[in-house]
Amino acid sequence: MRIKYEDLLTKFEGILISRGFTKENAKKAATIFADNSLDGVYTHGVNRFPKIIELLDKKLIDPSKTATKEFAFGSFERWNGNRGFGPLNAYIAMSRACELAKENGIGIVALGNNNHWLRGGTYGWQACKNGMIGICWSNTIANMPAWGGKDPKIGNNPLVIGVPRSNEEHFILDFAISQYSYGKVEETRLKGEKLPYPGGYDSNGNLSVDPIEIEKTRRFLPVGYWKGSGLSIALDLIATVLSKGNSVAKITSFEEETGLSQIMIAINPEIESSKVENDKVINLILDDIKNSVLIDENKKIRYPGEKEFKTRKENLVNGIPVLDEIWERIESLVK
Amino acid sequence: MRIKYEDLLTKFEGILISRGFTKENAKKAATIFADNSLDGVYTHGVNRFPKIIELLDKKLIDPSKTATKEFAFGSFERWNGNRGFGPLNAYIAMSRACELAKENGIGIVALGNNNHWLRGGTYGWQACKNGMIGICWSNTIANMPAWGGKDPKIGNNPLVIGVPRSNEEHFILDFAISQYSYGKVEETRLKGEKLPYPGGYDSNGNLSVDPIEIEKTRRFLPVGYWKGSGLSIALDLIATVLSKGNSVAKITSFEEETGLSQIMIAINPEIESSKVENDKVINLILDDIKNSVLIDENKKIRYPGEKEFKTRKENLVNGIPVLDEIWERIESLVK
Repeated sequence: MRIKYEDLLTKFEGILISRGFTKENAKKAATIFADNSLDGVYTHGVNRFPKIIELLDKKLIDPSKTATKEFAFGSFERWNGNRGFGPLNAYIAMSRACELAKENGIGIVALGNNNHWLRGGTYGWQACKNGMIGICWSNTIANMPAWGGKDPKIGNNPLVIGVPRSNEEHFILDFAISQYSYGKVEETRLKGEKLPYPGGYDSNGNLSVDPIEIEKTRRFLPVGYWKGSGLSIALDLIATVLSKGNSVAKITSFEEETGLSQIMIAINPEIESSKVENDKVINLILDDIKNSVLIDENKKIRYPGEKEFKTRKENLVNGIPVLDEIWERIESLVK
Repeated sequence: MRIKYEDLLTKFEGILISRGFTKENAKKAATIFADNSLDGVYTHGVNRFPKIIELLDKKLIDPSKTATKEFAFGSFERWNGNRGFGPLNAYIAMSRACELAKENGIGIVALGNNNHWLRGGTYGWQACKNGMIGICWSNTIANMPAWGGKDPKIGNNPLVIGVPRSNEEHFILDFAISQYSYGKVEETRLKGEKLPYPGGYDSNGNLSVDPIEIEKTRRFLPVGYWKGSGLSIALDLIATVLSKGNSVAKITSFEEETGLSQIMIAINPEIESSKVENDKVINLILDDIKNSVLIDENKKIRYPGEKEFKTRKENLVNGIPVLDEIWERIESLVK
């Protein structure tokens, strides 16, 4: 079935209010879920919503807590997520980073002790809607071996880079350090297929495209082998040091993936140039790439974020596709 | 042969002065070449020095020009490299970023119209020596296809992330977006070997570990396939917009790889915490990774920058290994 954006938003909002969110916070949180669904990222929208309500019902997320500022100096702020609802806190942190960037050209907010931020792209789009370049990342539990190791020690620490355009067709890179997500590997297994490129190791220690083998060993592959391994560690180091929060190692010692450390950086591209000037620069770069000699004539080159923008426009007109069983579960959560 | 650090430095300095550098700039530029050699990055030290002198003699690098500040607001500055010596300008830009970070917690310098910065790691080490977290990148000429394309459209845009430790054993990730450098592929071909992992495409459009095939097609592979392709574009967009400089596409239209755009970001990790506190956090993270179950008991896990630090200590004691023919070429450059 297809549900209208407004109806999905209202449904989420009501359920969140019934779980202890203030009206204002319920609206913001519901918007994040509805927007992720609108953009076609259902895994972090409608499909994830019931799981989050479960965590709220188990008291693992506290709906009454939001992030509080603990330190501020110049263009830097450190906030404590107080283990509230992750996306709401991340949203607050990116808002502050954007305000700091407006004042000083660049702003950074380190957010510790937060919960999972769901879809990293959310905060890239947020920065761009504010006219800012956004660079943000989160650490996670250890879910990959470091390069040269066998046991999970590093996170797939999602990294997001957003560059704004005045037509709202922003460039949004939403980039987990693992070559494939757990979700993608699972989906491939359920379809009885193989991955297009190696995504991890088999039981013999060889690179593998077989989702069954990779799920068995839990040895997922970082992007670019040793390079992604190093990048993952770098992001964890910076997030942990600046947020005074938990590292990947520390988070992995908890029962659940909670108390994450996140970094939000915003840069003001209009500090010196107009929107029109910046658009021109960006369009030239993206047009040049789109003018590549294609491997497959039927597969045009898309820049990161392009697909989400297109899906959003379609879903706004036609409604958001929701699986019947997911909708039933969401309906059952209404109190 | 092995040349003492001080002797190499003096030799470089003299030659650079003879090519029009001021005494002060010759010292700084010579230090960058000598330090890169000391760290074992000979390709960007002794081995590259004669090529740079050639560019100076051809008037493609102007030794009399250094970067000038064109715009400043808050924690942001934009500098023009004036097509001077790339590493010197990049060094100036990172110095300013560090000063801005000391004042405001974070600082960013966009440097346009510069020449090649040689080894990106230089500016990561520089930030860390100043006690700062450093994040910097450069664009390049187009040397890889974008994901889905066949012809070179994106740069291998090196990305550097440095995290300081008070014992000077800094974490320095120096990360080109291509899986392998041209140099590494060439070296592998000369040795008659294959790459350990696919580094590009063969003539049939399949991923390949054969350096001959990859050099033939010039279709190098970005790290993580589509992910590295997106990351490369993101870095180019930000560098070009903020520096008001040249994009990868524009640079590719020039006769030589010149007029590059670079971004230097510094963040002050001591804004709120002491060196000792930060060391503790960093050591816990790196120790945990080093305690991985190893794939090969004889191959300990190294964090990025560890090898360079070790090589530096050895080369300081034993002298820097220089190939006889390279030393002869350097000697022949003395005027």
